[in-house]
Amino acid sequence: MKKASSLSELGLANDVHHALFRPIQEAAPPSPTKRHTKISVVGAGNVGMAIAQTILTQHLADELALVDAKPDMLRGEMLDLQHAAAFLPHTRILASPDYSVTARSDICIITAGARQLPGETRLSLLQRNLALFKQIVPPVAKYSPGALLLVVSNPVDVLTYIAWKLSGFPPNRVIGSGTNLDSSRFKFLLAEHLVVNAQDVQAYMVGEHGDSSVALWSSISVGGVPILSQLTKDKAAMEQGVLERIRKAVVESAYEVIRLKGYTSWAIGYSVASLARSLLRDQHRIHPVSLLAKGFYGIPEDQEVFLSLPAQLGRSGVLSVANIQLSEEEAARLRRSADTLWELQRQLEI
Amino acid sequence: MKKASSLSELGLANDVHHALFRPIQEAAPPSPTKRHTKISVVGAGNVGMAIAQTILTQHLADELALVDAKPDMLRGEMLDLQHAAAFLPHTRILASPDYSVTARSDICIITAGARQLPGETRLSLLQRNLALFKQIVPPVAKYSPGALLLVVSNPVDVLTYIAWKLSGFPPNRVIGSGTNLDSSRFKFLLAEHLVVNAQDVQAYMVGEHGDSSVALWSSISVGGVPILSQLTKDKAAMEQGVLERIRKAVVESAYEVIRLKGYTSWAIGYSVASLARSLLRDQHRIHPVSLLAKGFYGIPEDQEVFLSLPAQLGRSGVLSVANIQLSEEEAARLRRSADTLWELQRQLEI
Amino acid sequence: MKKASSLSELGLANDVHHALFRPIQEAAPPSPTKRHTKISVVGAGNVGMAIAQTILTQHLADELALVDAKPDMLRGEMLDLQHAAAFLPHTRILASPDYSVTARSDICIITAGARQLPGETRLSLLQRNLALFKQIVPPVAKYSPGALLLVVSNPVDVLTYIAWKLSGFPPNRVIGSGTNLDSSRFKFLLAEHLVVNAQDVQAYMVGEHGDSSVALWSSISVGGVPILSQLTKDKAAMEQGVLERIRKAVVESAYEVIRLKGYTSWAIGYSVASLARSLLRDQHRIHPVSLLAKGFYGIPEDQEVFLSLPAQLGRSGVLSVANIQLSEEEAARLRRSADTLWELQRQLEI
Amino acid sequence: MKKASSLSELGLANDVHHALFRPIQEAAPPSPTKRHTKISVVGAGNVGMAIAQTILTQHLADELALVDAKPDMLRGEMLDLQHAAAFLPHTRILASPDYSVTARSDICIITAGARQLPGETRLSLLQRNLALFKQIVPPVAKYSPGALLLVVSNPVDVLTYIAWKLSGFPPNRVIGSGTNLDSSRFKFLLAEHLVVNAQDVQAYMVGEHGDSSVALWSSISVGGVPILSQLTKDKAAMEQGVLERIRKAVVESAYEVIRLKGYTSWAIGYSVASLARSLLRDQHRIHPVSLLAKGFYGIPEDQEVFLSLPAQLGRSGVLSVANIQLSEEEAARLRRSADTLWELQRQLEI
Repeated sequence: MKKASSLSELGLANDVHHALFRPIQEAAPPSPTKRHTKISVVGAGNVGMAIAQTILTQHLADELALVDAKPDMLRGEMLDLQHAAAFLPHTRILASPDYSVTARSDICIITAGARQLPGETRLSLLQRNLALFKQIVPPVAKYSPGALLLVVSNPVDVLTYIAWKLSGFPPNRVIGSGTNLDSSRFKFLLAEHLVVNAQDVQAYMVGEHGDSSVALWSSISVGGVPILSQLTKDKAAMEQGVLERIRKAVVESAYEVIRLKGYTSWAIGYSVASLARSLLRDQHRIHPVSLLAKGFYGIPEDQEVFLSLPAQLGRSGVLSVANIQLSEEEAARLRRSADTLWELQRQLEI
Repeated sequence: MKKASSLSELGLANDVHHALFRPIQEAAPPSPTKRHTKISVVGAGNVGMAIAQTILTQHLADELALVDAKPDMLRGEMLDLQHAAAFLPHTRILASPDYSVTARSDICIITAGARQLPGETRLSLLQRNLALFKQIVPPVAKYSPGALLLVVSNPVDVLTYIAWKLSGFPPNRVIGSGTNLDSSRFKFLLAEHLVVNAQDVQAYMVGEHGDSSVALWSSISVGGVPILSQLTKDKAAMEQGVLERIRKAVVESAYEVIRLKGYTSWAIGYSVASLARSLLRDQHRIHPVSLLAKGFYGIPEDQEVFLSLPAQLGRSGVLSVANIQLSEEEAARLRRSADTLWELQRQLEI
Repeated sequence: MKKASSLSELGLANDVHHALFRPIQEAAPPSPTKRHTKISVVGAGNVGMAIAQTILTQHLADELALVDAKPDMLRGEMLDLQHAAAFLPHTRILASPDYSVTARSDICIITAGARQLPGETRLSLLQRNLALFKQIVPPVAKYSPGALLLVVSNPVDVLTYIAWKLSGFPPNRVIGSGTNLDSSRFKFLLAEHLVVNAQDVQAYMVGEHGDSSVALWSSISVGGVPILSQLTKDKAAMEQGVLERIRKAVVESAYEVIRLKGYTSWAIGYSVASLARSLLRDQHRIHPVSLLAKGFYGIPEDQEVFLSLPAQLGRSGVLSVANIQLSEEEAARLRRSADTLWELQRQLEI
Repeated sequence: MKKASSLSELGLANDVHHALFRPIQEAAPPSPTKRHTKISVVGAGNVGMAIAQTILTQHLADELALVDAKPDMLRGEMLDLQHAAAFLPHTRILASPDYSVTARSDICIITAGARQLPGETRLSLLQRNLALFKQIVPPVAKYSPGALLLVVSNPVDVLTYIAWKLSGFPPNRVIGSGTNLDSSRFKFLLAEHLVVNAQDVQAYMVGEHGDSSVALWSSISVGGVPILSQLTKDKAAMEQGVLERIRKAVVESAYEVIRLKGYTSWAIGYSVASLARSLLRDQHRIHPVSLLAKGFYGIPEDQEVFLSLPAQLGRSGVLSVANIQLSEEEAARLRRSADTLWELQRQLEI
């Protein structure tokens, strides 16, 4: 990419820095093992840019690299972020279609993905995304062999599995954004109507991201007060039908935003930034994310599927999975999702 | 707007809140004069939404209201912000095509504006924007008579004048985002090539936002060290021609971003959020913003024009203007811009 | 207080400001109803200063006023905070033994209090503190008639009652820091040993602050997963005796810190700053704080006692009280505390 | 140190965690080179604790270790910070009299130091501090061979030299807090009386920390506007005598705080936290800090002295020194300080 606005081209020579600054004597060179924090975002569309901008505003990284196949748009987005330099702590911002720009990242976030064509089958879409990930994941893994991989592209569960396979990384370092955002939508809907702060609501959506996600009714609490038992006692108001309608409202809300504004961006940006914070800052916080789920809740050991479960995240990725109590029906739903995904994955040539 | 996903419609009655919470006895109602902080953004396009999202991330307001003429897109943007509730401190987010949603704002930010049509004259564009502001400013001023008005729409200097006239507000409460962003771009270009942190660079673009903005060379310093004198002494490297090319690179960089990605959004979002912070939090910080400039630097007292000058901003708006030293040529440029704007404004029927 | 280091005394005349800045024309004076945010702290000892410093670091107020009877120490603390100006967003910091410095506060935090003398009875200590509060509360209420009162001094429950009576404020605007800190200690102990993030632990201590506080076992959950039922199912490990020992460990931990370092400061500073944030920023978050508890859990309507219960806090103070399920024994404990406090309060002449 | 309040001792077995959480399969162990951020503070007195608490509030580290020779007080301070867990992002807080607790720190901050005895000579005090540093620096360097050393103890310039010698670290990794705080006091005094935000004031104190520090008059600017030239032009008000009185007011203000409250703590806490941020987050910001000054401004190459000069700080420590213009008198003052320090240092047996 041509750097049209480079001051060096304009005659302001590099030695201006040397006129202004001098090193101290006997200084040692920087140590390669003592580095600042770097996050890379692959895919600079609406989702990728909302993530990048939120990471920048929250100063989660000291270096931020963007990769996209469209060099002009990419350079425009990079400049637009860079121009805010005076309003933010310093973050070095890089962008290139070449994956070498991501070298030595602590986290690589993948948002690139093909969109469903009219009439296209789910399998055909997946195969096109598989082809795309074969171009993305190997160079990402090569340039940052110690990184955490955070997959946002949809269908997120299968693509996280694919990223795991293509990267050769241990499974704790490959995570899908999964139902982290669905759970926030769930909390928002509950909080808005209970007139409480959503941060005081504990509630999870788990399982497959999308239409078959599972809302964990038993775990809903407000400020630690389980609301179902409260309600049951007081008025037994929430029957099965109502609950299912609320779950559908959550699932529907993603489609609603897409129908209204054309895509989703802000909420997924905040969701992924919150995951990046818990990972990089070793927070051990619990988030529902897509992870290697075999062996949990009766999912067979030979089904290498990724599904969202509440997990503790830290500097090493997935630290552990919360041992929540599922009803038999909820566990059965998880296993059905696992079956479906496994069947689908077996048709792919990775 | 229909609230399709309302839980109340879904059967979760409002009295769930009452099952979970009870008021204490003898509680007094909220005092109308002791209120939380509210910011409204008029225009939910790329610029308006980047501003709204940055304000939300930085938790500058306790209530955020969005207004736009397109109800579907507007509702989509509102939901997309609301869905992040679990990841952010609580901010009440409202949206409506009706200006009543902005009532009792502390700051109203106007980003709406018509775009230039092919072949359209500057005057014709202005007249269309004047017509638009006649629909926007009076209801905004009516619903928030004590607010600060912050105009972002372009051409920002004339539109800030128009907003001032239409609002009837005192001039310290009507501010244009002006060259605040240009100055950040200027600092970024200087910082990048001097290998310093942009927050250690002091540098201003002033005057008319756009092609005729004035770069104040004498005030450029790095960490308080004036670089021009430094350079002159060391190598006399920066002649007039070089300086003018740098100024043009700054002016050009806005066009470059638009050419590359289609519009600018992130940097203007951060720029306006930084203004909102200095205003609301009474920071007395110095920003170059568009303000009523008559009487400064020889601009005639009868020319009621808005131009960007470095000013202290606080809870009352523009607190005072920094008395910077302009070269005679720089002052002449300001006066020429004032003449041009005044001539243009006289053709408008406000 | 003499301002020894005043630059004006040093000959740098006020008109330097006027050489550097000029107002714009026709500017209107600041509106009295559109003000910045102000917090006052009465008592500049270890607790008061830890609160003030945390409020400053977190930029919760635009103006911070300190009051103490010891003018030298007070001025030293003020200067020590002011000297950090270059490292923080701007907050105006004032200090005076005169309560007029607190005028028009949004929140007044009272940390002043007499310490128990050797051999002194609880009643005698209370009477001395009552005498102190008669000097503090009326001027505080006079200078900030619309403020929220936040009492930190111990014994916090009775002193919050006294502050309520002396202020004449409605009860929702008078709050004691109560068991907000005890609950954080409870969460820390649980989190540390469950190897989770304390922010993922929901757990409350309620009732009387101090030795007779009540730990709500049924409401303990980790990431929304109730741990008691989990444990009971798995190993029935936590019998009554263990639970009571944990509660005592929490109560003991305050004494332990005092024994080891002489006083507590940091944790109460963070605790009170978190309350100030929820109040000022209208967060509607749930905190266990001391509030007018009559009528809750069978406390008689004529017992005007303050006890800690989980409550939603916002710009108007206590918004509502969470309707948690107490065991009969827990409720009985609350009522015993209410009886004791009421008996004690009736011996006071307020 | 006995952990009296340990839940494990109370019977809440470690396997509660295992009842709540399970690892995923095939997870790899944490990589030793991908670690979180750790800061250690040696010396848990007023200064050390103000630094530790500010680092905690600003979430600069993921792990914070405290070392002090007084185990009881140290444990009290640790517990007091830990008890705030529910109000802050997670930081692991450790404390021990044993330096092994600091292992693998990114920054080690040394605040421990002997106080001057009545009638004690400067040399005798230094020799006692040298003896102390011989106990502190070698284990600190051994346990964190790649760390940055940040010396706060006074006399800071000589002790930074001593820490450099004892550590064997390259000089860019050994920094004294020097005049970073003096410069903030300078900015505060200027800002308060010019009625501007201190963050808009650029001004440096350099040289030896304490009575002979040098105020750089020529570099004072407000929002980039050099005030001396401004003033000279307008009223030539600031003659040499006035300037010297302002410098003395800055130097005096440290003594004033000590006289009034007994010690300084808050401002040095913020000052050191700001240095830690610039270092760890690779900010390249300019701070006046004590660094190996030989060869600058005519200081002889064989004088291995540390003096404060404005320097860019980043992940590798001191990146470069700003080439400010000193008057001949200012440079002479620096050289006199260098002579004095060098003479003093030659009397020490390191």
